[in-house]
Amino acid sequence: MNLILLTNDEIINNITEITGDKLKHILTFIKPVAGDTLKVGLVNGMTGDGIVTAINAHKLVMTVQLYKKPPEKLPLTLICAMPRPKVLNRIIQHATTMGIQKIYIIKTWRVEKSYWESPMLEDENLYNQMILGLEQGKDTVLPFIAIRKLFKPFVEDELPEIIRGSTALVAHPTGETQCPFDIGSPVTLAIGPEGGFIPYEIDSLQKIGFTTVSLGQRILRVETAIPYLTGRLF
Amino acid sequence: MNLILLTNDEIINNITEITGDKLKHILTFIKPVAGDTLKVGLVNGMTGDGIVTAINAHKLVMTVQLYKKPPEKLPLTLICAMPRPKVLNRIIQHATTMGIQKIYIIKTWRVEKSYWESPMLEDENLYNQMILGLEQGKDTVLPFIAIRKLFKPFVEDELPEIIRGSTALVAHPTGETQCPFDIGSPVTLAIGPEGGFIPYEIDSLQKIGFTTVSLGQRILRVETAIPYLTGRLF
Repeated sequence: MNLILLTNDEIINNITEITGDKLKHILTFIKPVAGDTLKVGLVNGMTGDGIVTAINAHKLVMTVQLYKKPPEKLPLTLICAMPRPKVLNRIIQHATTMGIQKIYIIKTWRVEKSYWESPMLEDENLYNQMILGLEQGKDTVLPFIAIRKLFKPFVEDELPEIIRGSTALVAHPTGETQCPFDIGSPVTLAIGPEGGFIPYEIDSLQKIGFTTVSLGQRILRVETAIPYLTGRLF
Repeated sequence: MNLILLTNDEIINNITEITGDKLKHILTFIKPVAGDTLKVGLVNGMTGDGIVTAINAHKLVMTVQLYKKPPEKLPLTLICAMPRPKVLNRIIQHATTMGIQKIYIIKTWRVEKSYWESPMLEDENLYNQMILGLEQGKDTVLPFIAIRKLFKPFVEDELPEIIRGSTALVAHPTGETQCPFDIGSPVTLAIGPEGGFIPYEIDSLQKIGFTTVSLGQRILRVETAIPYLTGRLF
């Protein structure tokens, strides 16, 4: 927690009062005392300072000054096959922390059907994971997240528009080339499930303009591949 | 599990019999039938094929042929502050999967004292995590792992020898430069705990030849930073 995120409702006349779980978290990880200046931010807004005017086990009161833009997002759209639900949480958090702008969680052939029943996919959980990711990365701007449970209409009808103006790459063990470094322009990056995309899916992606890129002989887990490729591309 | 790792004891006259937890894992994730060819490897040895000659709920029998070298390791030594114990497991697994050659888990000022009591640091657990990482990455060669509970003697007496012949980088929010891409030569990479290295620790590392590198304004979690930097450097 490198930044405390607040919503508009939580700031009244530049004063915020924090209670409940959020306070518990702050008391555990930041341990502030009166007079301390903490990093704060407004969800989808500016960042700045919160000066602690009072604190006890039940309430933290801060005077809030917001004056600084959050860090720029990466021009990166991630198309990610639905992973095991508990891995999904980490992926959302870490992708948000790194500044990935848009995340599509999609169905592919090798995604276990049961994963779609998971409460992790509910809006409230996704929101909470994004907030954790933003607070870690000192960012305020929620990424765009969408769930797409039908592969073919997504790829044929929606994805061509999403990839327009970007380099579209799909990580695949038998990729045509090694994944490039330091690309410096927008990228759409597709990552398959454990076991990978099936040939039909790779064909469909190639047909609309994706290039397959390899990460070498090693097969990385999805949660490793996402930061590995993000650090490489930007 | 992209490869089934076997020890020398488990292969007799090119035949292996798998039972117990390992069998359960294979039945869950690979679901083989008689006649299937599975990827197998010998710990610290060659990889090859295992042809399933018999399988039931209690035993899997394979004829094993080992003929292929495992993938090359990356010329990367990781110096990582001890993280939360359950994160340690993921870090060991993912670092092993990516082919990191040597891993030092070290004490720094901001490492919670209680972490050192964790059973996760026991040899048996570290071995199991490495095996999981190797099986994911289709590798057989265990990385070198060492635990160092005293910062100063480690940095002053041992680390100068470890970094000899490598580019020594320490990830730090106020780093001198952005982390380089595609370095193509040996690297020693130091990553601090949540909260970072303290100034004295950064000074100590710089004194023996480390360069501080920044990952931009965002603060990544250790488990994100390791693949992020690995994908960038190699």
